Amino acid sequence: MAKASSSLSYESLAIGIDIGGTGTKYGIVDRNGNVLFSGEMSTRGFAQVEDFIDELHNNLLVLIDKAGGSGRMRGIGVGAPNGNYYSGTVEYAPNLPWKGILPLAKLMQNRFQLPAILTNDANAAAIGEMMYGAAKGMKDFIMITLGTGVGSGIVANGKLIYGHDGFAGELGHTIIIPNGRYHEGTGKKGSLESYASATGVKLTAIEKLDNSTESSLLRDVPREGLDSRKVYDAAIQGDRLAKEVFDFTGSVLGMALANFVMFSSPEAIILFGGLTKAGDLILKPTREHMESNLIQVFQNKVKILVSHLKESDAAILGASALVWDMKG
Amino acid sequence: MAKASSSLSYESLAIGIDIGGTGTKYGIVDRNGNVLFSGEMSTRGFAQVEDFIDELHNNLLVLIDKAGGSGRMRGIGVGAPNGNYYSGTVEYAPNLPWKGILPLAKLMQNRFQLPAILTNDANAAAIGEMMYGAAKGMKDFIMITLGTGVGSGIVANGKLIYGHDGFAGELGHTIIIPNGRYHEGTGKKGSLESYASATGVKLTAIEKLDNSTESSLLRDVPREGLDSRKVYDAAIQGDRLAKEVFDFTGSVLGMALANFVMFSSPEAIILFGGLTKAGDLILKPTREHMESNLIQVFQNKVKILVSHLKESDAAILGASALVWDMKG
Repeated sequence: MAKASSSLSYESLAIGIDIGGTGTKYGIVDRNGNVLFSGEMSTRGFAQVEDFIDELHNNLLVLIDKAGGSGRMRGIGVGAPNGNYYSGTVEYAPNLPWKGILPLAKLMQNRFQLPAILTNDANAAAIGEMMYGAAKGMKDFIMITLGTGVGSGIVANGKLIYGHDGFAGELGHTIIIPNGRYHEGTGKKGSLESYASATGVKLTAIEKLDNSTESSLLRDVPREGLDSRKVYDAAIQGDRLAKEVFDFTGSVLGMALANFVMFSSPEAIILFGGLTKAGDLILKPTREHMESNLIQVFQNKVKILVSHLKESDAAILGASALVWDMKG
Repeated sequence: MAKASSSLSYESLAIGIDIGGTGTKYGIVDRNGNVLFSGEMSTRGFAQVEDFIDELHNNLLVLIDKAGGSGRMRGIGVGAPNGNYYSGTVEYAPNLPWKGILPLAKLMQNRFQLPAILTNDANAAAIGEMMYGAAKGMKDFIMITLGTGVGSGIVANGKLIYGHDGFAGELGHTIIIPNGRYHEGTGKKGSLESYASATGVKLTAIEKLDNSTESSLLRDVPREGLDSRKVYDAAIQGDRLAKEVFDFTGSVLGMALANFVMFSSPEAIILFGGLTKAGDLILKPTREHMESNLIQVFQNKVKILVSHLKESDAAILGASALVWDMKG
């Protein structure tokens, strides 16, 4: 008994993996949310998902050794776009290079010889915020991740909403502007993600440059080098067109947030990811347009908070937090 | 003890009240969901909410006497637009004649000398469906009421979502068409309710009549007499313009339902209320447009069901069901 108990406390680390459309972050986390070791690799350039997992395994083995070996690992928590908590599969993820239904949890489990559990990347982030971040103590909140794409995790009555089939919380794909901008990955028009993501900011900038003769610092940037960061840099230098890009992005995001508030009436909306670095450039129009689209009963009640977790940590933390809830 | 126990079983009836924008339904219900006695009155024509409650009390007293007296009543459950489960208040309800914050549960409690509990009318309907109707056994579903307005009740993880402040589930006020049709009650533009309600169908018909010269049976209907029922009657007689009204209504509703599915991934959406009487005229375009706006992972999974509860009963049933959950 003494041996079992000491071995249990010794095995008290979790592996957290966050698979994004561009990069994958991974780390080893203790129960208190300390990221002990972490790393990052590209998600792209692997023809088969198995090749990706082989490389991820190789990279993680180094960290696992540093942390005392595989015996200390209780399990693997994975956040991935379109990840299904119930089935452990990633299904038809528009932003991942591999198509169809991928049995990701099972592949991880086989490769690492450790129990693995999977969810939507933004659901994982929401769990991370609830356990260690801005949503600590909240029972009703919505997490929105503004990165290459737009993800979301919804907590109501203190529990994450997985929905009937485990795919709940795809707010990035809700239609905000009917017949609006085409989304390459989904083939749908006018979704939140096609506007309020890093990709969306870039496309809005290109549209504004093409449809006006207004002078702008962005006209000096070669098209292939234009990205949301460049738009931000121009905006803080006072570039009017660049500022309009964020105003427009915030107006679409704000309208979407109003709709989400009228759905689940959260205490707060937690924003996370690259676009939040634009600060008030995007937050101010977002707040304004959220409020102006809310009916009276919801006005001036819902906080919009920016995650204060270190970006590289938060995703890993959230994914690792899944492990502590695992059965067995 | 024997006396207390028999008195408890004797006191096993609940009063259910459903307050709508136009009419109020009330009834006395047993634990098995049998509506023993019921009635209906207009919600309009009372300057003060207290006058309305006096009249409601007078009407209900007759039924209470028939059912064995006030001593048999365990409590009052009320469904009302913008009703707040936590505070027992109705706040800024755009479709009710009384403005501001109304302490409805307290007023009822004082007038009837019985414990009273309140929620959003559509939340009450959702509880009714979950206990006695089409959502029996479901843990994740969305109830949409298509009447004078559009209401909603959302169940996730087996629990109704009240949200942080008790006002969750106002899907009728989500913006579906930015800068779209003006909503008299809220001052907002392009909300679901301004299209997919009985009022919305009438307005769409008027727009179509005004903006075309197409012949239509509806041109013979005096404008003041034009309503969703007349549009339905014309459509089943093959009137093309009238059918287009339902096609358009279904297209907006379908797009909205797709957004709701991508939020909480329900097993089913239960539709209820006057507009559902139009059957496939509205359901077919609704289903088509829901599916075409869903990303792949949600397609062909979510049932759209029409409530099979008798309309007059369902609202009362749902409101009365609140009583069985009351503490004390």
